[in-house]
Amino acid sequence: MLQLESLSDRTRMPQLTKTAVLVIGGAEDKVHGREILHTFFARAGAADARIAIFPSASREPTIIGDRYRSIFEEMGAKVIKVLDIREREQAEDPHFQEFIQECTGVFLTGGDQLRLCGLLADTPLIEKMRMRVHSGEITLAGTSAGAAVMGHHMIAGGGSGECPNRSLVDMATGLGIIPEVIVDQHFHNRNRMSRLMSAIAAHPDRLGIGIDEDTCAMFEKDGILQVMGKGTVTIIDPGKMSHTNHAAVSATEPVSLHNLQVHILGYGDRYHLHQRCIFPPEA
Amino acid sequence: MLQLESLSDRTRMPQLTKTAVLVIGGAEDKVHGREILHTFFARAGAADARIAIFPSASREPTIIGDRYRSIFEEMGAKVIKVLDIREREQAEDPHFQEFIQECTGVFLTGGDQLRLCGLLADTPLIEKMRMRVHSGEITLAGTSAGAAVMGHHMIAGGGSGECPNRSLVDMATGLGIIPEVIVDQHFHNRNRMSRLMSAIAAHPDRLGIGIDEDTCAMFEKDGILQVMGKGTVTIIDPGKMSHTNHAAVSATEPVSLHNLQVHILGYGDRYHLHQRCIFPPEA
Repeated sequence: MLQLESLSDRTRMPQLTKTAVLVIGGAEDKVHGREILHTFFARAGAADARIAIFPSASREPTIIGDRYRSIFEEMGAKVIKVLDIREREQAEDPHFQEFIQECTGVFLTGGDQLRLCGLLADTPLIEKMRMRVHSGEITLAGTSAGAAVMGHHMIAGGGSGECPNRSLVDMATGLGIIPEVIVDQHFHNRNRMSRLMSAIAAHPDRLGIGIDEDTCAMFEKDGILQVMGKGTVTIIDPGKMSHTNHAAVSATEPVSLHNLQVHILGYGDRYHLHQRCIFPPEA
Repeated sequence: MLQLESLSDRTRMPQLTKTAVLVIGGAEDKVHGREILHTFFARAGAADARIAIFPSASREPTIIGDRYRSIFEEMGAKVIKVLDIREREQAEDPHFQEFIQECTGVFLTGGDQLRLCGLLADTPLIEKMRMRVHSGEITLAGTSAGAAVMGHHMIAGGGSGECPNRSLVDMATGLGIIPEVIVDQHFHNRNRMSRLMSAIAAHPDRLGIGIDEDTCAMFEKDGILQVMGKGTVTIIDPGKMSHTNHAAVSATEPVSLHNLQVHILGYGDRYHLHQRCIFPPEA
């Protein structure tokens, strides 16, 4: 019985396709090498890919949806549908439900992460998608706002040019695809180290992941992320944090954090999310 | 003989005065509480203080020299001299030499750290000052550019809004007062985490110290620094760094750094420079 299921899985998904979750820091190359988008396309099944695009984070969903549709069409995806959801009720559309059940790739565009979560969080459509991502049946990519929603705790907004403090970051609830992380995007480009540290001070049971523009943290099913693209992925690991005064200070007072482990990961570097170390471990 | 010397030391320096090196992140409060400047004044001997002000980093040395002179006059310092050196030769002025030999406090103003080092580095005047600082006979303070010069390696300039890379920071040689550190100032205010990390990637045998505006890392003779003022002091410790590709990449490529230890220290927090840990050590 198990063997039969496994055979049926294999017929549905081409042999070489290994699903992944691609968390992209925004402003990914859409014109030249398109390495990140092409990796998404390949991991979604390449010529067999059936891709759902959610442009709901954007206030111009038609334009941005069409842009990604053209890109994946040009790459040669088999089927592409833009799920242009502008009201929560649309998430119940049976055609959308059906496509989420049979697609091999889902792409979340940029825009406003609060808008994206407001429209999609906790809908049966997204629950179905999340289950299929977790089962390794779908390759999921999110860029910018689409990256921000990956964790359970989500950075909704914030500032820079200040030391870590509680008012430097606004938190909300994300889609919980990779619940253990807090993602920040456009990371070094917009000087967001301090706001991600402020978020981690509030949630020291999570792992901070800052992703630069045109850069991707690609999470494999085994918990290993690999860096792709032009910039870096910054890991802020509070696992050994010995002290923070986060709970004791007022909103604008400096927040101290003692004993953080920080990694700046470059192209090809790998990190084990559960073992919390560079992979393979270094001396 | 030793006892006599020690007695003579005590008569020269009031009992309660404990010298220190105050490394200030710039824009310190000069009007209201003036906590940092007042601490410098107290550590320099308070009413017995004989203070030398070096305004040489600034292009307006008269204005800035007078400003600090007024502040320390108002506090009640016994003697204040502005050593307005605009040519290297002036460092040989016997009156300046004499005052550096007898002063109890030295203040380095802000401006351009390259200018300051260009005028003063390796002069007998500064060598004398450094020796007396190291002997615990002088309390030294430097703000902004005056803070930048404290290490052996000095950040001369750089940028922000990028991931760590070799072109993000310009290095030069400082005055080497605390040779083992690389100081960056206006730290979170000007989003300088990435440039300090770039500097540390180039000099992993040093300790990165980023100091916010109106904030001071006060170094005691025992190697312990304590945080004072409104912001934070950030420590970047590459002591356990397992990898950087700094030497292998081109000037603008991302630099990776694996296994950095980072501390964000707030008011009153202490750090042991030689043991490289929060002090007293935390669980």
